[in-house]
Amino acid sequence: MPYVHGYAEREHERLRDQAGTLVELLHRDTAYPAGSTVLEAGCGVGAQTVTLARRSPEARVVAIDRSAESLDEARRRIAEAGLGNVEFRQADILALPFEPASFDHLFLCFVLEHLPRPVEALRSLCRLIRPGGSVTVIEGDHGSAYFHPDSAAARAAIECQVALQREAGGNPLIGREVYPLMVEAGLHAVRVSPRMVYVDAGRPDLVDGFIRKTFTAMIEGVRARAVAGGLIEAERFDAGVRALYRTAEPDGVFCYTFFKGVGERP
Amino acid sequence: MPYVHGYAEREHERLRDQAGTLVELLHRDTAYPAGSTVLEAGCGVGAQTVTLARRSPEARVVAIDRSAESLDEARRRIAEAGLGNVEFRQADILALPFEPASFDHLFLCFVLEHLPRPVEALRSLCRLIRPGGSVTVIEGDHGSAYFHPDSAAARAAIECQVALQREAGGNPLIGREVYPLMVEAGLHAVRVSPRMVYVDAGRPDLVDGFIRKTFTAMIEGVRARAVAGGLIEAERFDAGVRALYRTAEPDGVFCYTFFKGVGERP
Repeated sequence: MPYVHGYAEREHERLRDQAGTLVELLHRDTAYPAGSTVLEAGCGVGAQTVTLARRSPEARVVAIDRSAESLDEARRRIAEAGLGNVEFRQADILALPFEPASFDHLFLCFVLEHLPRPVEALRSLCRLIRPGGSVTVIEGDHGSAYFHPDSAAARAAIECQVALQREAGGNPLIGREVYPLMVEAGLHAVRVSPRMVYVDAGRPDLVDGFIRKTFTAMIEGVRARAVAGGLIEAERFDAGVRALYRTAEPDGVFCYTFFKGVGERP
Repeated sequence: MPYVHGYAEREHERLRDQAGTLVELLHRDTAYPAGSTVLEAGCGVGAQTVTLARRSPEARVVAIDRSAESLDEARRRIAEAGLGNVEFRQADILALPFEPASFDHLFLCFVLEHLPRPVEALRSLCRLIRPGGSVTVIEGDHGSAYFHPDSAAARAAIECQVALQREAGGNPLIGREVYPLMVEAGLHAVRVSPRMVYVDAGRPDLVDGFIRKTFTAMIEGVRARAVAGGLIEAERFDAGVRALYRTAEPDGVFCYTFFKGVGERP
């Protein structure tokens, strides 16, 4: 199953920019106690790992990814940040080499969206957590994106990203499903909170950091595959991308929502 | 220009239910100082007026609507709530019988969405506010509604509401435009905050109060006009409404966002 976002340099930059802009919104209420162990499954290039490790300096984070290239980048960033409480392991998160109940907490960010059977994956990961431990799931939802000026071409370009992620076995609208998914995976006391990114000209950091460098950059990243796959005409795709950049002008507005769920391993 | 929501009894109930469920979300940060005067333009059946008057007991609210029937209901509710700081006047908000700078503050909730020229309307209402006074605008956005399970029929039924409101000269997607609209109307220091209604089974009050009695009831309210106007087949509309009710089941999720803007009259 191909990873829809790819591994190119521009994509690394995008994930870094995204992490910088959204840290507070997504992670302000994530902190683990001293001495606890946290499994971060699917850490990618370490965009969230740095924040996790920094916010819980006396917890130990075990961060897993299947891509050696991503792990190299993640290691580099953790070293650069001067953090010593992270251990990286290369493994497939669907077949992790750990005993049941090996960890206190599970942290999953932008991972389930890529998996064909997210409930099963979550259930199997939860077995690695001790009873009473916490499980945190953060996901976006591309159906939550809307903007001003509205644009049919922009919506069509976003639909390409949605179609390609579905083709790859993922669910780009998974954010709205975090609650039922965690409940179905057997978690208790599940509480989901939406984290809406609202951007207008009064928030210039997000105009650049989110509209341009995160969301629109992500959509631009699927251009070649969308056009080659016959999902859209190149001209219409490009018009859609221009319309997305247009929402970053002073009278534009952009909305997108992430969903953060926290539950307890019974 | 017909008022898209109509004036039937069920609609009164819906607006009452909506106000009850959403009071905290929309109004928790609205309070006016003792001795100040607040113009509420387009108060309708007084759904917001009761909250306004109760939260600012030492301010004086002047609430205006063009419908005598709505004002009767609003008066009844203010009396029932035992509030003495509201004065009602029947008038067209586009031609109000007040001198410039007669009020300290302006409050507009679910009003601009119905007006063909919202910027002009807001600009003319702002003239009635003294320099330095505050202007508050609250609007929904029907394009912000998404849910699980997703349903094309439900989206088609919502589109009927959108089309009918546009036909009547309104803008059902105005929520996302509150920022540029207030800036264009000449207000200063405009700050818009989204107020997302996120509903899952963990929030049973909102399941009933918002999914069923507010949003789906509103969509059901346009059935006759949508079908008679040839916008949709009756069966498809009904399937859409069923799909909206379906989102109120234990594994369902519903999202909708209101936008609240506050600015200063220069």
